[in-house]
Amino acid sequence: MIARAKEAFAMPHPLFALDAANPHLAKAIALREIFARDAVERDQEGGRPEAQIRLLKESGLLNALIPKEYGGAGEPWSTALKIAREFAKVDGSLGHIYAYHFNSVHAAYVRGTPEQAADFYRRSAAGNWFWGNTANSFSRSLFGRRDGADWILDGYRPFTSGSHVADYIQVAFEDEATNERHFAAIPSNREGLTIENDWNGIGQRQTGSGRVTYTNVRIRSDEIFDFRANEAKPFQTLTPFQQQSVLLNVFVGSAQGALIAARDYTRESSRPWLHSGVERHIDDPWVKRVYGDLYIKTKAATALADEAAEALDAVWARGRDLTEEERGAAAVKIAAANVYAGNVALEVTSQIFEVMGARSATTAHGFDRFWRNVRTHTLHNPAEYKTRNVGAWVLTGEPPAPSTFQ
Amino acid sequence: MIARAKEAFAMPHPLFALDAANPHLAKAIALREIFARDAVERDQEGGRPEAQIRLLKESGLLNALIPKEYGGAGEPWSTALKIAREFAKVDGSLGHIYAYHFNSVHAAYVRGTPEQAADFYRRSAAGNWFWGNTANSFSRSLFGRRDGADWILDGYRPFTSGSHVADYIQVAFEDEATNERHFAAIPSNREGLTIENDWNGIGQRQTGSGRVTYTNVRIRSDEIFDFRANEAKPFQTLTPFQQQSVLLNVFVGSAQGALIAARDYTRESSRPWLHSGVERHIDDPWVKRVYGDLYIKTKAATALADEAAEALDAVWARGRDLTEEERGAAAVKIAAANVYAGNVALEVTSQIFEVMGARSATTAHGFDRFWRNVRTHTLHNPAEYKTRNVGAWVLTGEPPAPSTFQ
Amino acid sequence: MIARAKEAFAMPHPLFALDAANPHLAKAIALREIFARDAVERDQEGGRPEAQIRLLKESGLLNALIPKEYGGAGEPWSTALKIAREFAKVDGSLGHIYAYHFNSVHAAYVRGTPEQAADFYRRSAAGNWFWGNTANSFSRSLFGRRDGADWILDGYRPFTSGSHVADYIQVAFEDEATNERHFAAIPSNREGLTIENDWNGIGQRQTGSGRVTYTNVRIRSDEIFDFRANEAKPFQTLTPFQQQSVLLNVFVGSAQGALIAARDYTRESSRPWLHSGVERHIDDPWVKRVYGDLYIKTKAATALADEAAEALDAVWARGRDLTEEERGAAAVKIAAANVYAGNVALEVTSQIFEVMGARSATTAHGFDRFWRNVRTHTLHNPAEYKTRNVGAWVLTGEPPAPSTFQ
Amino acid sequence: MIARAKEAFAMPHPLFALDAANPHLAKAIALREIFARDAVERDQEGGRPEAQIRLLKESGLLNALIPKEYGGAGEPWSTALKIAREFAKVDGSLGHIYAYHFNSVHAAYVRGTPEQAADFYRRSAAGNWFWGNTANSFSRSLFGRRDGADWILDGYRPFTSGSHVADYIQVAFEDEATNERHFAAIPSNREGLTIENDWNGIGQRQTGSGRVTYTNVRIRSDEIFDFRANEAKPFQTLTPFQQQSVLLNVFVGSAQGALIAARDYTRESSRPWLHSGVERHIDDPWVKRVYGDLYIKTKAATALADEAAEALDAVWARGRDLTEEERGAAAVKIAAANVYAGNVALEVTSQIFEVMGARSATTAHGFDRFWRNVRTHTLHNPAEYKTRNVGAWVLTGEPPAPSTFQ
Repeated sequence: MIARAKEAFAMPHPLFALDAANPHLAKAIALREIFARDAVERDQEGGRPEAQIRLLKESGLLNALIPKEYGGAGEPWSTALKIAREFAKVDGSLGHIYAYHFNSVHAAYVRGTPEQAADFYRRSAAGNWFWGNTANSFSRSLFGRRDGADWILDGYRPFTSGSHVADYIQVAFEDEATNERHFAAIPSNREGLTIENDWNGIGQRQTGSGRVTYTNVRIRSDEIFDFRANEAKPFQTLTPFQQQSVLLNVFVGSAQGALIAARDYTRESSRPWLHSGVERHIDDPWVKRVYGDLYIKTKAATALADEAAEALDAVWARGRDLTEEERGAAAVKIAAANVYAGNVALEVTSQIFEVMGARSATTAHGFDRFWRNVRTHTLHNPAEYKTRNVGAWVLTGEPPAPSTFQ
Repeated sequence: MIARAKEAFAMPHPLFALDAANPHLAKAIALREIFARDAVERDQEGGRPEAQIRLLKESGLLNALIPKEYGGAGEPWSTALKIAREFAKVDGSLGHIYAYHFNSVHAAYVRGTPEQAADFYRRSAAGNWFWGNTANSFSRSLFGRRDGADWILDGYRPFTSGSHVADYIQVAFEDEATNERHFAAIPSNREGLTIENDWNGIGQRQTGSGRVTYTNVRIRSDEIFDFRANEAKPFQTLTPFQQQSVLLNVFVGSAQGALIAARDYTRESSRPWLHSGVERHIDDPWVKRVYGDLYIKTKAATALADEAAEALDAVWARGRDLTEEERGAAAVKIAAANVYAGNVALEVTSQIFEVMGARSATTAHGFDRFWRNVRTHTLHNPAEYKTRNVGAWVLTGEPPAPSTFQ
Repeated sequence: MIARAKEAFAMPHPLFALDAANPHLAKAIALREIFARDAVERDQEGGRPEAQIRLLKESGLLNALIPKEYGGAGEPWSTALKIAREFAKVDGSLGHIYAYHFNSVHAAYVRGTPEQAADFYRRSAAGNWFWGNTANSFSRSLFGRRDGADWILDGYRPFTSGSHVADYIQVAFEDEATNERHFAAIPSNREGLTIENDWNGIGQRQTGSGRVTYTNVRIRSDEIFDFRANEAKPFQTLTPFQQQSVLLNVFVGSAQGALIAARDYTRESSRPWLHSGVERHIDDPWVKRVYGDLYIKTKAATALADEAAEALDAVWARGRDLTEEERGAAAVKIAAANVYAGNVALEVTSQIFEVMGARSATTAHGFDRFWRNVRTHTLHNPAEYKTRNVGAWVLTGEPPAPSTFQ
Repeated sequence: MIARAKEAFAMPHPLFALDAANPHLAKAIALREIFARDAVERDQEGGRPEAQIRLLKESGLLNALIPKEYGGAGEPWSTALKIAREFAKVDGSLGHIYAYHFNSVHAAYVRGTPEQAADFYRRSAAGNWFWGNTANSFSRSLFGRRDGADWILDGYRPFTSGSHVADYIQVAFEDEATNERHFAAIPSNREGLTIENDWNGIGQRQTGSGRVTYTNVRIRSDEIFDFRANEAKPFQTLTPFQQQSVLLNVFVGSAQGALIAARDYTRESSRPWLHSGVERHIDDPWVKRVYGDLYIKTKAATALADEAAEALDAVWARGRDLTEEERGAAAVKIAAANVYAGNVALEVTSQIFEVMGARSATTAHGFDRFWRNVRTHTLHNPAEYKTRNVGAWVLTGEPPAPSTFQ
């Protein structure tokens, strides 16, 4: 039998609580409570979080970042990031695919014409679409050829997070003739598209980050964005900011959630060590020190994540007026927050066991999912390179050049 | 499909190789190669490593530490510890239950009469017995009452590592009248004994460290050891040394094995990072640094483990002549090696992923089993308390008092 | 000859710059530039920073926190803390004694009658007083006896930071009859008072943290504050908040300043390593990584320090209405920021040498003063205990009880 | 007044004690006791340790590594390294220049003809010479021109450790015509040679690691070694092994000595923390943990240093028969030990203050000299590059190519 992820977030006192006065965040808190109930089972099963996506649709949160004029809530990126953080307290997969969804929601705005942006925003809001992506940049494995104004695609994409539960999908492919990259958006039930659902990571197990195969898939001309990377304006280079921000908030939420779950377990279940001389485990100076240390670091990670979220909100709000200099300043903040959050999350999710004790390390409790989630998720953009980017800026004043992952 | 744990230990050059000139170690190397083949599957399945125990029996290694006069190989503890380390390179469970077995093999020698020692050694060697234990000290949950010269036991023991594949079992129970602890050894098929085989740890998944239930189990008088903890001579207080030594060598072996597995994966499969500017991942200064750093720490852990193994050999060889002072000196060395090995193993088993990359974090590769094994196994004696014991000795010259776990 | 601490703070770009639009902070920036010129010499000499105190008086910054109605600038604590941080970028001693001065400035407000508060504020502002203290809590070594309405004091105080350049001095002494602690404020030239000026720390060398001896020193009744610790209201227990906040901002400023100084040295003077393959040291991936890492941590420390400063401002602004609960929430934030800042500052001030290189480690450059300052200053309230306090709050919801140092 | 470095090494029990049965080591222990008496003063003064060099001469230890046939003791390198470690427990400068002296003692053996080797060994032993060096590889600043069979040298060398108290000096210079490097050995009173004695490091303050100026200095043909780097046999490439080994043992000795000095101070002088609840500081779990942690790491550093010393002894003993492969294996061990020792020494020498307390951080105690020594000394060969070398070997099996510093 599998233990339930406890609803102990208000006991003895909330840590890292969102502002429930914000109705979007209040909904996220409520959903987090629901997601917690079977988070351990779903981690073990992997596969599709279908019921959870349905709840997200019912909540209206899928439209949170769509501008009001098109039927959305017009919230800034920071709202989605805080929600990702909240979900990741119990379920890193849902945290990830929820916020990453907005990366695709904004695809037409970033890379298409104003008309495409309006059209996609409007239809996405109206349809309450959940977006996945087949736009991972690691490999060149999906190629298109022109067929009149349309394109025909063959190949595959790895790491297609969210595709397994998506209504619509963002696509990146290379022109087989020129090797130039193109972007598009299509419904997930498009003929020839196979969501392999073959993800079997050691963590983030419900993200559906497996492979999507394209066999003779037609992309209509109005689904293609006329975007050229080498002519991109600053606001068109914010994709890595969105991605890195989502990841770092999943790290932060995972650290927060692991710490809370451990705290609750320690309070309720941990026994004092044989030679401790204390009656309650929580009175052991060691236990107090470790919780203090992990809390302080998680708090620092949260502070940097908050600064980075503000930075993303600010550059996003600048839209087409965004300058390279403004982008650069935000790039450093987001990279710094990402590196720090990943490191702290790895430390917290591993160290909690030491103060919970031997009986906490069972699959029924599922506390190891926090480490597995963070360990998996931090590999998608090495901290080493982001740290170097920050250091180069410290040394020279030059922020990282806009590029994949930075 | 599950990837095979690669047999790449000789490529490009062996790291942490045992001395194959020693025939016991040569057998261990050969078995490790076999154990590696399905280590990932067996980690996922948990349960009983029956085929592996059969191979161990065929190898003769189960009798390695039984004195020659009783039909064993007469090897010192360090041989068993090195073998545990070798197995743990690919399978922490087998490393653990193999070496822990000798803790029970020696039970009659440590706590019984010379006649019992001779008798149990002789029968164990002749029968090629594998020993498990139901002697964990965490809980007082197994009680006995006298029935003439026999005892009748009711209750249970948790953390009964090795019991699920054992021929014979070491027992610790409390006298229900006096609460005094007694020790015994019985066959695992004794009536009333139920090996629950309910272990479901996040790691060390084939150790069978679940519960054994006793229902009206009779212990014959010749199976009871007439040992009183408060009258124990120094040589009778070496149980924690044996236990801590087994654990620390599983930590060391896990770190070594994780590093080797990662090294091989990095060489064969890892791709250079997008912004690295190198053609081979292994030429990235970052990758070189991380491997250098982890190797140096693993090497330091190995050096301390070797010193601790020598210390255990030395105190064990002193037998009944062992003094408290000699015991104390060894206690500090074993505690130091244990703390250090655990910390290094946690670091290595988590950090390897960073230099392997995103594609390494799949259940098919199973690289996460190293961290799960170490994380689980390090919880059975907190580093905090062992570190304090070492520190108290530094400050006062007083070694830890003989006691459970120290 | 001693190298000048370079004025390179604007090159290639400012790091951790204060908001120069705030006129108080603008003055602090200007003073920091002046203080930098002989910071290395003054660190070597120790003794009294008399010229610097004169400049502080001329700047008006000594009255920054005195309420406007009494002739001060009415700034919140955070202004003093930011100024301490700014000074500590080049001179930890000045950072410390400047902000610690306000602890004594507020002594009458916290512990005296409203009339005393008004009187001391008014006279301090008018006289442009610099305050030192002889109120360190480590020892009970200064005793008073009543003489009519006055007290006569004999004994000494250690760690009397700022006393060597003070116009006025805060006093804490024990009643020799009852051992009860009393507080007072007297001019530094009071008969019988000897400022030993015997401080010879390894760091913070111009703080004058030596001993002050009292020989038959008379304290007039209007100089005594009628304060009883066991009847203290929450707002009267903020002394440790002020102290811990000053210290933590000196840590933060030291880390920032060390990083800036190292960055400038690395840019101007460091040579690439023999085997690096790069032409400029700053292009070594190692150098970029280290600067990135140290910057990220210093940034995190700054973020926590900013949160803690806001918390102090908030509780201070509540004045006599402050509740225990509000105090408790701030206590955790200040402790967390203090622990983190100290740890980061120790790391930064030691590691900078690795990326500056062998030629940086000379007394002429004086870069070691940063580590010596932080190492000295962090010892006055062990991180261990503050961390335990934070952990206890995480575990139980109970903040640290108001007391010395917490 | 300056506190005496205490002779408390036998109290309460020796840590890291050398084997006093070895007469060379026994002499070193006795000298260490003498050196300790004014180590703090000499650290402050810098300059020349003349009395200490005289004592070294009287002890005979300067000839320890000269082969017996030439009048020396014929000891292996490990003896000199252990002595360096012992001296560095109280005085890193003496540890360094003592063992580094043998690098020059062996100069003729490594780079000259067998006749030169014999001659220099014999004269050095007979004259009880102390050797310094002007052979640092960082800069090309000393040039020679041929004058018949002699050379005339002009220029300077930085980092000339030991030159200020040397009888003889090893020289490295570049041929001004070809830029080829040549080696020689000359008496320190050679005309035109100026020992500037201008070293003013933040640590290692009596090493005399300043500049030596050459003005028209004549080197006689029999003082020149006919050695070409590009034709060097493996045994002629051991200079970096000697250097790195000396450094790492100074690191190890500094860590050991700092830990011992702190332990003694903590026992004798430290007071329990206000909120600790213990009567003796050494009974605080925190204090025990920190001492345990630092001891364990120092012990690990010692174990790696011992392995590396054995490796150096082994390759040195192979002499002209040494193969590249054998050299490579030793190179990895020495690099690993050096990196680890440096990191541990930095950690120990900084952290000891936390468990000694605020009163320990005075110049009179001089405990900061340990950190200053290690911080200075670790900069002469970045751990980063040695770590990368080790990692490259782990990844490829290729040891570092013989070269300066590796």
